[in-house]
Amino acid sequence: MKTLKKQLDELKQLKFNSYNKDFLLTWEKSEQELRAVVALAELFSEMQKAGKSFRTFDTGLAISIFRDNSTRTRFSFASAANALGLGLADLDEEKSQIAHGETVRETANMISFMAEVIGIRDDMYLGEGNKYMREVSAAVQEGFEKGVLHQRPNVINLQCDIDHPTQAMADLVHLKQHFGSLENLRGKKIAMSWAYSPSYGKPLSVPQGIIGLMTRFGMNVTLAHPEGYGLIPDVVEVAKKNAAASGGRFEMVTSMEESFCGADIVYPKSWAAYSVMQRRTPLLQRGDHAGLKALEKECLANNARFKNWECAEQKMKLTRGGAALYMHCLPADISGVSCAQGEVSAGVFEKYRIATYQEASFKPFVIAAMIYLARVKSPLAALGKLIK
Amino acid sequence: MKTLKKQLDELKQLKFNSYNKDFLLTWEKSEQELRAVVALAELFSEMQKAGKSFRTFDTGLAISIFRDNSTRTRFSFASAANALGLGLADLDEEKSQIAHGETVRETANMISFMAEVIGIRDDMYLGEGNKYMREVSAAVQEGFEKGVLHQRPNVINLQCDIDHPTQAMADLVHLKQHFGSLENLRGKKIAMSWAYSPSYGKPLSVPQGIIGLMTRFGMNVTLAHPEGYGLIPDVVEVAKKNAAASGGRFEMVTSMEESFCGADIVYPKSWAAYSVMQRRTPLLQRGDHAGLKALEKECLANNARFKNWECAEQKMKLTRGGAALYMHCLPADISGVSCAQGEVSAGVFEKYRIATYQEASFKPFVIAAMIYLARVKSPLAALGKLIK
Amino acid sequence: MKTLKKQLDELKQLKFNSYNKDFLLTWEKSEQELRAVVALAELFSEMQKAGKSFRTFDTGLAISIFRDNSTRTRFSFASAANALGLGLADLDEEKSQIAHGETVRETANMISFMAEVIGIRDDMYLGEGNKYMREVSAAVQEGFEKGVLHQRPNVINLQCDIDHPTQAMADLVHLKQHFGSLENLRGKKIAMSWAYSPSYGKPLSVPQGIIGLMTRFGMNVTLAHPEGYGLIPDVVEVAKKNAAASGGRFEMVTSMEESFCGADIVYPKSWAAYSVMQRRTPLLQRGDHAGLKALEKECLANNARFKNWECAEQKMKLTRGGAALYMHCLPADISGVSCAQGEVSAGVFEKYRIATYQEASFKPFVIAAMIYLARVKSPLAALGKLIK
Repeated sequence: MKTLKKQLDELKQLKFNSYNKDFLLTWEKSEQELRAVVALAELFSEMQKAGKSFRTFDTGLAISIFRDNSTRTRFSFASAANALGLGLADLDEEKSQIAHGETVRETANMISFMAEVIGIRDDMYLGEGNKYMREVSAAVQEGFEKGVLHQRPNVINLQCDIDHPTQAMADLVHLKQHFGSLENLRGKKIAMSWAYSPSYGKPLSVPQGIIGLMTRFGMNVTLAHPEGYGLIPDVVEVAKKNAAASGGRFEMVTSMEESFCGADIVYPKSWAAYSVMQRRTPLLQRGDHAGLKALEKECLANNARFKNWECAEQKMKLTRGGAALYMHCLPADISGVSCAQGEVSAGVFEKYRIATYQEASFKPFVIAAMIYLARVKSPLAALGKLIK
Repeated sequence: MKTLKKQLDELKQLKFNSYNKDFLLTWEKSEQELRAVVALAELFSEMQKAGKSFRTFDTGLAISIFRDNSTRTRFSFASAANALGLGLADLDEEKSQIAHGETVRETANMISFMAEVIGIRDDMYLGEGNKYMREVSAAVQEGFEKGVLHQRPNVINLQCDIDHPTQAMADLVHLKQHFGSLENLRGKKIAMSWAYSPSYGKPLSVPQGIIGLMTRFGMNVTLAHPEGYGLIPDVVEVAKKNAAASGGRFEMVTSMEESFCGADIVYPKSWAAYSVMQRRTPLLQRGDHAGLKALEKECLANNARFKNWECAEQKMKLTRGGAALYMHCLPADISGVSCAQGEVSAGVFEKYRIATYQEASFKPFVIAAMIYLARVKSPLAALGKLIK
Repeated sequence: MKTLKKQLDELKQLKFNSYNKDFLLTWEKSEQELRAVVALAELFSEMQKAGKSFRTFDTGLAISIFRDNSTRTRFSFASAANALGLGLADLDEEKSQIAHGETVRETANMISFMAEVIGIRDDMYLGEGNKYMREVSAAVQEGFEKGVLHQRPNVINLQCDIDHPTQAMADLVHLKQHFGSLENLRGKKIAMSWAYSPSYGKPLSVPQGIIGLMTRFGMNVTLAHPEGYGLIPDVVEVAKKNAAASGGRFEMVTSMEESFCGADIVYPKSWAAYSVMQRRTPLLQRGDHAGLKALEKECLANNARFKNWECAEQKMKLTRGGAALYMHCLPADISGVSCAQGEVSAGVFEKYRIATYQEASFKPFVIAAMIYLARVKSPLAALGKLIK
């Protein structure tokens, strides 16, 4: 109970208004709004630990739209919806009539009559995922204004081509818990590094989400990748501006070792090069399987030049005290476990395996916090009642 | 609150008993029962608008069986179930052992131990969909009588080969709201017209549902289609009798223009000819792909003779004051938007787009009303408590 | 109310502690634990009959993992979860990233943040299903101990390669209700007999579950099958020991007729030979379709030698008074109904059809009882409140 009150007090000191707002990119949110999500996620987590329900809705739907496979995010969203009292309804596009020529704005309204929230994952095409989320958002806004919908559901980005805010925010909660407070993150060095993987085409949203978010909190963010594996230039600009505004730093290097030097946290993860994703998008859109195969072959050959970008024991020794916190959004490509050679050595991963599970464990609570703050008009008063 | 009481008063003036009854065809229901569904759907809609829950069940399942793709009806059923407090359980026939030789009556019982309602969509085969629903209904009736089931779930027709009662009833609520009352529909002309579509094989259930229902309320119903695109003759007979009994009119013409003349409402929508559906059913049943291809080719060629059956600005001018209400069950084939040439011009559709969304918005409330009236023994008393 | 109290009194006389325990094999459970599940399943069934909710959870998830098609067990699990107030979340391995190299222990934690229970069906590979369940169980145990999970969900075996405890326990409830008490089962003869089926590869878990469970209650269990259709030898040993310990009998014969002689209950059901399943497992695992085809052909030819292993009227006359209770887990292969020739004649099946539905009707309540006893710390006190 004491812990719960303390958590709530933390929330009470923040100035934010997230009511009826979508959560699409962390850099569209004020720092206070982000802090509120973190604090509320921790409060919900503590409540669950204490066996206290934080059910908020009597009825209502949480709609999910997954345009790519997902286990973690799917279950995190389902868990958050359930804990708040919402029923889950998945829009399975294969079972719908969408193929028959439905427009986004029509479908968005048709699924939203009882919806409190729409969670969308759409990370396959550069330039498409976030755009699609905004189309859905605009459609339900129109439906609400014209009286079609009695309530305007909020859209939550469950991973797009640009950002992966539920992941990055869960990572932030993990860092806060690990280092004691958000203030303690100031000046800490985090190495967001590309890593080798035998697969290709992994989305850019996790590294982009990390450099876009951690620069908000005065961290020293170092992005490392081989030449040609750059991220979306606009997001790199966002990171630079964030660092300047928050008193942090943002650097780019072309060596995993360099990024690891003196790092407090390392986040080694593979992704496809922006330029590859740009070439891949039209191939995917027109279903050009031969073109995709050829591109894959070329990219895998290119990837293979960087097999030494593996987070192994030697490189970990370069970090602060040889004891940096290893992070990963999971699943990781673990050398000798899930692939012959991958992002991380089996030894390093095993040492931090449980820590990565804990990192992931905050995601349901982060999503629940995002939904709660968007849907409850006076969250502080309502939470006060909940914890009593 | 005043509105809610007024809505409930309207319900109180009706004489009906829908308790423990399936909803399979509107013409099996008394006019008072239909009016009760309309009034309750409006009450539920007002309650949601006012932020009042109409949750009725603590636990219990709403089973859905979709034998064809669906977005709207699927989400409408899910929304209604959720709003009433029922959990949704979808019988996905691909994941079940049905292919292993299960009989309908066995499966119907196996899925119904906690079921309050079974919603079924089965509109592919003429002569099959409604029959299947009655088999399920008979099976759970037997299971209930023999003590296998502790409660007898009710079957709701979510679209079959004969009728689409949840759509037609939502359309009726829309008309009531548009014209102010069901009494005001008396003498209004509605043109249920065939329209050109570049696809074929669309079910007959919507036009059949419309002519079967709107003739109950003294409307002047005009059915228009090219020669050879007739509906099931038995349903046409139902419409004739209904019109005679209600003091309305039922006419058949072979020109969209003629049907539009002086119309208060137009409902232009494509469907396959009954004779085509009759030929198609055995081909589908024996999986004769070559036969289906050949039939499709023949039908599309035939359809193409009627490309001028498009609801465009010129034809709308023929309607009463050039301002008839355009209706559609969605998704519409919109010329230049979802297809090169289709059922409706882009201009006409855009003018009425939001109106068609509103039309659709009543479906979840209509389904919730159907479930409520079938499952709650003393609905008036229970509703009195709900709105307090 | 009287019945409910009586049922609860029965439960109160038992000594058991199932709190926070998985349910993987009936022979890992004490007799008192099994009796508790039976008594609670009957209590829940009576409560539903009386229109009393036994909802226990405000929120929380029941996770299901089905690695084979299922209707009955899927809906039984969904029904049990819903009745207790849990939301259902199905891990659809096709939609997850499991194919991308996730390990079982990682996935098990990722899906369990809000989970109270994980129901698993995995019966395809000999030596795999039960093992997988134990891996999931160990993984969530580790996650709980390391603070990743705030609660440790329990695993319930919804059918594996070794046992089918929810089926066998539902069968036991059915027998108790039919014969009046578990004590009345003492000395009753049950014939668990192989039967002919035109399909092959049916799992061994039902016959194994029956001989493993019914020998606990002093029954005279006779296992009958043609030579070469033996069950897993270890399970046969379990049955022998159980019979010796309970004062029952366990016999093996090679003729359906012999097993039926004087039987009080017959359970004729097809299964694949253990030796065939052993050969089949590596073929399935490496996707050797030609090898599987060849094995199927050989086995069907072998099966065909035993077409006379059909439960028909003549054989039923051999049973006690010609009136043994016929049981089946469904769906049965019914001669002339679901296949040309199968496990049971149409006449015998039709006579007992409703009885087999009733047998199946206990499964949701058995599963609810298993979940309840594993999750509620002081079940007797909590149930006392529930029935008030």
